[in-house]
Amino acid sequence: MDFRELMEAKYRHILEKYINDPSEQVLYQGQKFSRKSIEHRISPEEIISLHKTLMNEMYPELPEEVSLSFDMLLEVMLGYGLAYRELQSLRHKQQ
Amino acid sequence: MDFRELMEAKYRHILEKYINDPSEQVLYQGQKFSRKSIEHRISPEEIISLHKTLMNEMYPELPEEVSLSFDMLLEVMLGYGLAYRELQSLRHKQQ
Repeated sequence: MDFRELMEAKYRHILEKYINDPSEQVLYQGQKFSRKSIEHRISPEEIISLHKTLMNEMYPELPEEVSLSFDMLLEVMLGYGLAYRELQSLRHKQQ
Repeated sequence: MDFRELMEAKYRHILEKYINDPSEQVLYQGQKFSRKSIEHRISPEEIISLHKTLMNEMYPELPEEVSLSFDMLLEVMLGYGLAYRELQSLRHKQQ
């Protein structure tokens, strides 16, 4: 398993856990997951895309409007990912 | 109306439009919205939070698992917002 596969399995695990039994503790696992993903240069738009895929897999009856709403969210997050990578590249040039 | 209110109205408008009639054109409006939000220092976690609020308002019958899933997504995006702000602050120090 490479990091992306591991990451997907991990996110699925905490997402399912939280939906079945919401708690601060599981949200905290989300924080840790976030730090690891950033370290491994996973972009924010990849997170939205993974979230959409998992929700569709976990809930095949998911209303169409929810699935479509993720497409718009993904489009918006693409801009954030781009801005982050631009900032990183500017920083590297300055170093 | 301050920028945040305008932004919320704008996102609601394009989200509704896309869900009712999905097209590349509306997604492109999402791209423009994203650029404006970044310029106005709206964080990625604020976008997720707004998305959740709007989906709950637009679809009061939204399944509980969808609403809960947004909480986990928000938690993960918080880390991305933090990383972005750290990078920005490092860059300002270097300038």
